[in-house]
Amino acid sequence: MVDGHLSPSITTATPGRRQRRASQIRERLFRAALDLFAQHGFADTTVEDITNAADVGKGTFFNYFPSKDHILLAFAEMQLVKLQSIIENLRDTRDPFPQFFRTLAVRMTEEPGRNPSIVRTLLLANLSSTPVREGMRINQARGHKLVSEFVQIGQDRGELRNDLPAGDIAQVFRQMVFGTLLVWSLYGDDSLATRIRTALDVLWQGISPRGGPAPLVTDAQQETQHGS
Amino acid sequence: MVDGHLSPSITTATPGRRQRRASQIRERLFRAALDLFAQHGFADTTVEDITNAADVGKGTFFNYFPSKDHILLAFAEMQLVKLQSIIENLRDTRDPFPQFFRTLAVRMTEEPGRNPSIVRTLLLANLSSTPVREGMRINQARGHKLVSEFVQIGQDRGELRNDLPAGDIAQVFRQMVFGTLLVWSLYGDDSLATRIRTALDVLWQGISPRGGPAPLVTDAQQETQHGS
Repeated sequence: MVDGHLSPSITTATPGRRQRRASQIRERLFRAALDLFAQHGFADTTVEDITNAADVGKGTFFNYFPSKDHILLAFAEMQLVKLQSIIENLRDTRDPFPQFFRTLAVRMTEEPGRNPSIVRTLLLANLSSTPVREGMRINQARGHKLVSEFVQIGQDRGELRNDLPAGDIAQVFRQMVFGTLLVWSLYGDDSLATRIRTALDVLWQGISPRGGPAPLVTDAQQETQHGS
Repeated sequence: MVDGHLSPSITTATPGRRQRRASQIRERLFRAALDLFAQHGFADTTVEDITNAADVGKGTFFNYFPSKDHILLAFAEMQLVKLQSIIENLRDTRDPFPQFFRTLAVRMTEEPGRNPSIVRTLLLANLSSTPVREGMRINQARGHKLVSEFVQIGQDRGELRNDLPAGDIAQVFRQMVFGTLLVWSLYGDDSLATRIRTALDVLWQGISPRGGPAPLVTDAQQETQHGS
């Protein structure tokens, strides 16, 4: 849905220009809507508020989005396009896996992290609207599939633990990211980057390969546990 | 708030009976409210619906809860009392830490896990109501403090990694539990127990002590990584 403005396919000058123009209007409506949701809440924002803020006629909205809910689905779609592009980059390089893991978490929380109200709006809509929840489930399933592929690459390279199915690790990673966003959005402070970094630090050790089960060290050994 | 019915302090027969009776009514109102929130949503449930379901006079409600919001705060309070009791048990035993970690996660998700609608209701109220969010922040801070104490005990015993502050590990653990509940509540299937088990499996390896940094094994070594 949003890949039009990310990678416009220009075939001839006129359709190209028309397509770019359409992408620009769509993007303007999308950004205006997200700003308004953040300021006034999803429920209290009307389509007219959005078209006024984007400086287009009211009817124009429906050329781009069948309903206000579809703005939220477009947000999820945008996140999926991003996820896909990160995973495509991963296939073409031999950079170490932890770096990609960090990139994935940082980039996937970049956009929601702009504003805690946006995160609350998305969660609220998911929690309170059955149609949004059903639409989002499809996106969630695609997101899960993409992250599972990502984990599988790491497992194939021997850079992620291999004793759990890729899907299980992907599920834990995604729940960790959602949980971090959720808790952060309830506070709305500037802690998101730190929260993600710490979560990744813990998670990385949890998903990295190891020779055997975790040793249970004694109190005497504990003094040597610093700085790993 | 709810510890009255969990550990009634019986001094004389009459105040004891009166107190038990009050605790029973409070519990009945609480359970009726949660059931109604789950069935009809928080917003669409009135105080009268709750008192009808609990079979008490409407005015009685306000002897126990200053407002409908306070049912949600009581839910959080109940969870905190549970958390406290788990941590107190931990102090008195030398059982291995992973077992307590599992108990903590299982018991803390037991009550919310009864019904995905309850989880959605709690999250919705947190996300949409500033007074609830502010009340919950106090509960969250107490929950964070309790889990941090729990982690500290594990670190002191050398059963948890010591290179991160207890508060950081507690934060990741709680975000993991909240994220798992959130994602599960959007689906509402029977996957909660499995999701929690997998999250713990990953998290346990992430927070257990280790001699040094995670080794990055080569493709050739990968074959030996199964079954750790």
